[in-house]
Amino acid sequence: MSPLVPAGGKSALLSNIATLVTNDPGLGRGPLGVVEDAALVVESGAVVWAGPASEAPGSTETAVDMGARAVLPGFVDSHAHLVFAGDRAGEFEARMKGEHYTAGGIFATVEATRRAGDDVLRANLRRLAAEMLACGTTTFECKSGYGLSTGDEARSLRLAGERTDEVTFLGAHVVPPEFRGRPDDYVSLVCTEMLDACAPLARWVDAFCDRGAFDADQAAAVLAAGRARGLQARLHANQLGPGPGVRVAVESGAASADHCTFLSAEDVDMLAAGGTVATLLPAAEFSTRSPYPDARRLLDAGAAVALATDCNPGSSYTTSMPFCIALAVREMHMTPEEALWSATMGGAVALRRQDIGRLAPGAFADFVVLDAPSYVHLAYRPGAPIVAEVWQKGELRAGGRAA
Amino acid sequence: MSPLVPAGGKSALLSNIATLVTNDPGLGRGPLGVVEDAALVVESGAVVWAGPASEAPGSTETAVDMGARAVLPGFVDSHAHLVFAGDRAGEFEARMKGEHYTAGGIFATVEATRRAGDDVLRANLRRLAAEMLACGTTTFECKSGYGLSTGDEARSLRLAGERTDEVTFLGAHVVPPEFRGRPDDYVSLVCTEMLDACAPLARWVDAFCDRGAFDADQAAAVLAAGRARGLQARLHANQLGPGPGVRVAVESGAASADHCTFLSAEDVDMLAAGGTVATLLPAAEFSTRSPYPDARRLLDAGAAVALATDCNPGSSYTTSMPFCIALAVREMHMTPEEALWSATMGGAVALRRQDIGRLAPGAFADFVVLDAPSYVHLAYRPGAPIVAEVWQKGELRAGGRAA
Repeated sequence: MSPLVPAGGKSALLSNIATLVTNDPGLGRGPLGVVEDAALVVESGAVVWAGPASEAPGSTETAVDMGARAVLPGFVDSHAHLVFAGDRAGEFEARMKGEHYTAGGIFATVEATRRAGDDVLRANLRRLAAEMLACGTTTFECKSGYGLSTGDEARSLRLAGERTDEVTFLGAHVVPPEFRGRPDDYVSLVCTEMLDACAPLARWVDAFCDRGAFDADQAAAVLAAGRARGLQARLHANQLGPGPGVRVAVESGAASADHCTFLSAEDVDMLAAGGTVATLLPAAEFSTRSPYPDARRLLDAGAAVALATDCNPGSSYTTSMPFCIALAVREMHMTPEEALWSATMGGAVALRRQDIGRLAPGAFADFVVLDAPSYVHLAYRPGAPIVAEVWQKGELRAGGRAA
Repeated sequence: MSPLVPAGGKSALLSNIATLVTNDPGLGRGPLGVVEDAALVVESGAVVWAGPASEAPGSTETAVDMGARAVLPGFVDSHAHLVFAGDRAGEFEARMKGEHYTAGGIFATVEATRRAGDDVLRANLRRLAAEMLACGTTTFECKSGYGLSTGDEARSLRLAGERTDEVTFLGAHVVPPEFRGRPDDYVSLVCTEMLDACAPLARWVDAFCDRGAFDADQAAAVLAAGRARGLQARLHANQLGPGPGVRVAVESGAASADHCTFLSAEDVDMLAAGGTVATLLPAAEFSTRSPYPDARRLLDAGAAVALATDCNPGSSYTTSMPFCIALAVREMHMTPEEALWSATMGGAVALRRQDIGRLAPGAFADFVVLDAPSYVHLAYRPGAPIVAEVWQKGELRAGGRAA
């Protein structure tokens, strides 16, 4: 997209960086590995050097002035539902007038998604992916879950795979209308025919383990069937009330338990023991006017916490990781430092990726340039359009000079 | 800026508008005067016709396809402090860790502003005005208040006047350090020499009537002195605690009482009696982690409510009216309809303007095009970048086709 950094084996020096977040404590200050007055060297789409400008190697072939701004790893949005048709603005309005959020509204989106042609779903996905990029997200996960038949789920995964490598099979989102009253029959379908067709199209298997959706045994069966077909597990857990979700996630070796809004002391202990990231989705609590997860309890217990948008047309129709960071700080009492880590490295850990979420040798040159001197401004300036440039694999993809 | 709509006396038809908000109940449905499948006719920067596309006049000289999107009046941000230098990110971080917001932090900005050259202040103002425009704000008010000497206040007003007609003298923001312990002496200076120099540079006079700032008599004296020099009054009232602010505003004939976070029943009655708009600034409560104003009580009592950003480097460093709308709906239980009215017509009433805040004959063609079918999406899609285009006086100023 951009000629600023040469392709191929040539190297470029990105200099005049006011504050660089590397997320590598070996390279700079604190857990974010912050370097002031920094430089980056990018080659073949990857970071090959990061550190103080005064120590930058002199051998690079081109140079880019970053304008004395902050440079951060691109956001990693590890939880999004982007393959759908229609919207639920009416349901949102009713909820803001006092109606309670349940999983039931999902059916409206299932119906619209099944009816929609591939072109409609593809255009919607393209629009939302472009929004995410403009907001600084350089990697996003994308789930199926509005098809709920073998053909419609496979189609959703194929379309998601056109946009991201992080594709998640969520056939067990809710029990579809044609299986009403027969959830175990639906789980059987998911665990056999549907997963046979869908596993080759996905990297992850997920389920919605909550009241109104699937119970512990059903969710565990789906994760096990997915793992048997080579998928890795993640789980929607403890969003709508206390329950067995976190336990199922940890026992299934899931990379992440997502939502974690209602946790017991045992749930916190299990997450703190490591192995499963607690992915918090505060925009869902914002848009359903629900209590926020207790992030401090998780952090203070030593759990790894990720932040993601949960972008979906029912409970959280945002594409903005900066908005989630602002909510994490204001509403969940995360520090700006913790919130940024969770929105970058936290997401990378939740996706079991080591090549994203940080700006250190070996990682992709995926980064955000802020019209601000520091990452603190993401929470300090809520809603303000301060994401100035977004780079993926060393190429400018959105923002000022890309226009 | 844009060749899409001809200048001079020529007329343009803007058609294929999915949902048009006119804010004229005579033109469409409900208090927002909503027209579906609508058109607008623009001539010499003003709206000359608005209504259903099927009834649009056929005599226009050019046509612009609005792409089946929502078109709304541009946002009117009636409360902003944009003439300053430096930032207070450190104070924000400390506050998020538990420190309480007081008016005291203002001194840090006063010191930085006094030290800054005109070029620094001008660049900061330009950056923030560009952000506001990108977020859909087509009219903003701008206060002084970080100079607090005759020369520095006059300079602030001159710089503000380069960017907006809605310039407000806020010499009575806080008592400056050199008058510590002598507030009445400072008020005397404000009411004589300072206002003599500043009144010709402003349209409005304002004061911060709250604990840690100015009391009722001091604030009333400042408003009276400003009015005696031809300025109209507005007032910072009842932000930090219960107090006399609203009463002073109403008794002074102020166009608006701003903040209104802590109101008595008498305050609500006075605002409901009309004449003084209650301007709510929920982003300040967001960024100071304070309780939100009770918007429902004001609305249900019949008060006119405006929404504004309060953009300033201490308590509310956002430029985004869509963010304020999302907060108004989520946190203050305003309906999406009420929030949009307050962010457009409400601001216009708070500035006593009839030529902005609506899209009806006689108003400027200041409008926002959303990448969405309806204004409801401003709250339904918090943080998402859905402001696609921003037009001022019939010219495309920001967004897609302006790039």
